[in-house]
Amino acid sequence: MTAFDDLMAFQHETEALAQVAGRLAWDQETVMPRGAAAQRAEEIGALESVLHARRADPRIGAWLAAIDDSGLDPVGAAKMRHIRRTYSRAVKLPEKLSAELARVTSRAQGIWAEARAADDVAHFLPVLERVVGLKREEAAALADGGDPYDALMDDFEPDATAAETGAMFDRMRPRLVMLRERVMGGPRPAPLRGHFPEAGQMKLAHEVARHFGYDFRHGRLDKSVHPFTSGAGTDVRITTRVDEAEPFNCLYSTIHEVGHGCYEQNIDPAFALTPLGNGVSMGVHESQSRIYENQLGRSRAFTGWLFSRMQEVFGNAGAADPEAFHAAVNRVHSGFIRTEADEVHYNLHIMMRFDLERQLIGGSLDVADLEEAWNTRFAHDFGVAVDRPSNGVLQDVHWSVGLFGYFPTYALGNVYAGCLNLALRAALPDLDDQLAQGHTEGATAWLKEHVQRHGGLYPPREVIERACGFAPNEGPLLDYLDAKFGALYGV
Amino acid sequence: MTAFDDLMAFQHETEALAQVAGRLAWDQETVMPRGAAAQRAEEIGALESVLHARRADPRIGAWLAAIDDSGLDPVGAAKMRHIRRTYSRAVKLPEKLSAELARVTSRAQGIWAEARAADDVAHFLPVLERVVGLKREEAAALADGGDPYDALMDDFEPDATAAETGAMFDRMRPRLVMLRERVMGGPRPAPLRGHFPEAGQMKLAHEVARHFGYDFRHGRLDKSVHPFTSGAGTDVRITTRVDEAEPFNCLYSTIHEVGHGCYEQNIDPAFALTPLGNGVSMGVHESQSRIYENQLGRSRAFTGWLFSRMQEVFGNAGAADPEAFHAAVNRVHSGFIRTEADEVHYNLHIMMRFDLERQLIGGSLDVADLEEAWNTRFAHDFGVAVDRPSNGVLQDVHWSVGLFGYFPTYALGNVYAGCLNLALRAALPDLDDQLAQGHTEGATAWLKEHVQRHGGLYPPREVIERACGFAPNEGPLLDYLDAKFGALYGV
Repeated sequence: MTAFDDLMAFQHETEALAQVAGRLAWDQETVMPRGAAAQRAEEIGALESVLHARRADPRIGAWLAAIDDSGLDPVGAAKMRHIRRTYSRAVKLPEKLSAELARVTSRAQGIWAEARAADDVAHFLPVLERVVGLKREEAAALADGGDPYDALMDDFEPDATAAETGAMFDRMRPRLVMLRERVMGGPRPAPLRGHFPEAGQMKLAHEVARHFGYDFRHGRLDKSVHPFTSGAGTDVRITTRVDEAEPFNCLYSTIHEVGHGCYEQNIDPAFALTPLGNGVSMGVHESQSRIYENQLGRSRAFTGWLFSRMQEVFGNAGAADPEAFHAAVNRVHSGFIRTEADEVHYNLHIMMRFDLERQLIGGSLDVADLEEAWNTRFAHDFGVAVDRPSNGVLQDVHWSVGLFGYFPTYALGNVYAGCLNLALRAALPDLDDQLAQGHTEGATAWLKEHVQRHGGLYPPREVIERACGFAPNEGPLLDYLDAKFGALYGV
Repeated sequence: MTAFDDLMAFQHETEALAQVAGRLAWDQETVMPRGAAAQRAEEIGALESVLHARRADPRIGAWLAAIDDSGLDPVGAAKMRHIRRTYSRAVKLPEKLSAELARVTSRAQGIWAEARAADDVAHFLPVLERVVGLKREEAAALADGGDPYDALMDDFEPDATAAETGAMFDRMRPRLVMLRERVMGGPRPAPLRGHFPEAGQMKLAHEVARHFGYDFRHGRLDKSVHPFTSGAGTDVRITTRVDEAEPFNCLYSTIHEVGHGCYEQNIDPAFALTPLGNGVSMGVHESQSRIYENQLGRSRAFTGWLFSRMQEVFGNAGAADPEAFHAAVNRVHSGFIRTEADEVHYNLHIMMRFDLERQLIGGSLDVADLEEAWNTRFAHDFGVAVDRPSNGVLQDVHWSVGLFGYFPTYALGNVYAGCLNLALRAALPDLDDQLAQGHTEGATAWLKEHVQRHGGLYPPREVIERACGFAPNEGPLLDYLDAKFGALYGV
């Protein structure tokens, strides 16, 4: 056995244990008995402490020192790139800081939930202050004198920088605000009307998942409070939720998670339980969920097919005709909540959070001033005033659990989806004819071939550039949004 | 922190990881996507290797050497008893032997399944020979010059010996054979007739589980191919199976697993995630499942209530009246398969396996002669000739996976259940009146108080003796069987 073989064998076991942690999380959100939460926290804590010890195991340092990457094939070199990066992050973080972050964010999440339920910002701010302080320490430890926010973002979107991302967001924002103002100035299409029983929604959700290529031999579809995807390789599970008055919640959550799920399912099986066996970044992951959900799932062509299936399943699609149905699917509405936002508003939510959290980590914004900063920015970008904290600064769980640098990957995913959509439609000129028949396999095969199968083989921007033939940029997404909503709203 | 505190903290994490392994096993048998089996084996292997390393961790040896048990309270002393026993077993086993056993039994289980499906003993014997050889090595390593079979049994039923167990089985066997002959000589009661849809069976199974005190806030009831119980503390899950022509399969599997599940759920919460936080032995565990299933669940009183509920749920209980229903529940039938055996035949199955496996481990029986030995003994004890290997020596998975010394705990559990039933009925003279109303809480409260809450606090025989007020022995079980089946069959 060479040092490379030893390291890969060790890593294989770590990856398998990480999958186990994923199963526990899935179990907790779907099937765990209600009274098991405290014991489950102990179980997860024990497994996380095993994983933490393995990720910072000094043997890894010795193996890394003994391996000459230049002698490796591209797959071996890509594996080394991931392991070197993860290990270097692990050893930079003082054990004491990691433990304190785990302790404080676990407490902060509970306090955030209380504060949100009571609409009481003051209850949350002291612990958020503590979280931000610790994240600043973490960022400084990781940054080696570089931009501290970049160091946090790197955990979710390797090689992305706040400066580049921020510059791109600054170019996007005026066009999005303008589009929002044009669209919101005109008449509103009607939302869906009707009652759509859960059994029918879940049946249709399974059918739609199958249509989009989700493989039930290697996956499941269940219900949970918040939809999510978990697992990798041959065991990738997705969830959705059901509102009997609003079937799009179930159906488009399903299509969104199917995008994440198919990405994981379609990675080259040779990469399973290696550092290449997961989606390469949150941004690329989100590009898959978003292109499935929006550019494919919310297209006029596909919604025409869905309209017919809704009529067959529920006896009533909730709209007069396919045009009204398509308009309802894509209804732009003023709203406070990011997770309920339409395609026009969504990125504005992200850009606001990105700017605010970058200032928090950089030290130019105090936690005490966060709510005011949020409300001022919201009024400007969304044209309405935040009515209460649970609709404003308290709405997202992310900051309470220490997720700083994660939000921008949602908008990056949308940008990547815009690029991929342009390339995909150039490659498949008759795509709309296929989608109108409910056939997505042309599109999903293209995405599998050009993006998904590579897993972690190429860096995030490179995988998008290889697929599209051009460097990722915001243009295609903005053009797509202008064209789609311009036509829908006649503006 | 003292050595005792350090050891307990380490043990707490090990127990939590063992619970995680239990969740994985539950997942595999209930909800895992079909195509995930190979990856799951990797996940389980990684977690088992973490657990194995922890159980033989040399730090445990140092802590054990530093702790003076005589200064501990009874709970601390009981914890030490378990940890010293487990550690001493772990360090006696050469790493190489454990790994080889894991490798060979994993392969043997697959070969056994093929052999059983093809009714081909010769296909299985070579690998069984290898398993038996390794188990003999393991037994010799563990036995320190004592009885090797005792050393294997000790893993499932601490402190039990083959000599005592064998002597007791030899006393039981003639009375059971005689009872079988008397019962089988007379007329046979009719089995249940009807169609019992799955939805109704599962509804009734949930209801019956609740009636027997199973706590769904800390548990679940699902379907699996083979019913089982998994987990401990606040997350204890049971499964059952459904045959629409034969509802007793579902209902009595449920009640059986509820006995196991309630034992785990009712252990003193202070013992959670300590060595005292599980049922103390397989025999005591089986005593709980058996007394719930048989002495309570198959009693004339309880079946009267069940008859009414079956009528309400299915519109038809499958029998003319409560007497015929009770006779059908307790129908004694000739059969080859242990898991389908009635109360009269069940222990005969066990005793046969106990004698054969004791001879295999002791070396007085060769694997090559096993089938003949099985068939000869079966004809004698059961009065019928085995028709094919899948109904004979190939029927159980146990030996293929290296479970030697496990079978006798099933019959020990029945013996313990007989003792507990005697004591329970003395303590609750109106128990039948309660059961006739579907009320089992008097019985289950007594079992919780006298057996279940103690978890691993007392050694197995001691917990039964404390509950009953007398040393466990086979008399009460045999008297109960003679009385019950004598009355049912008029013999």
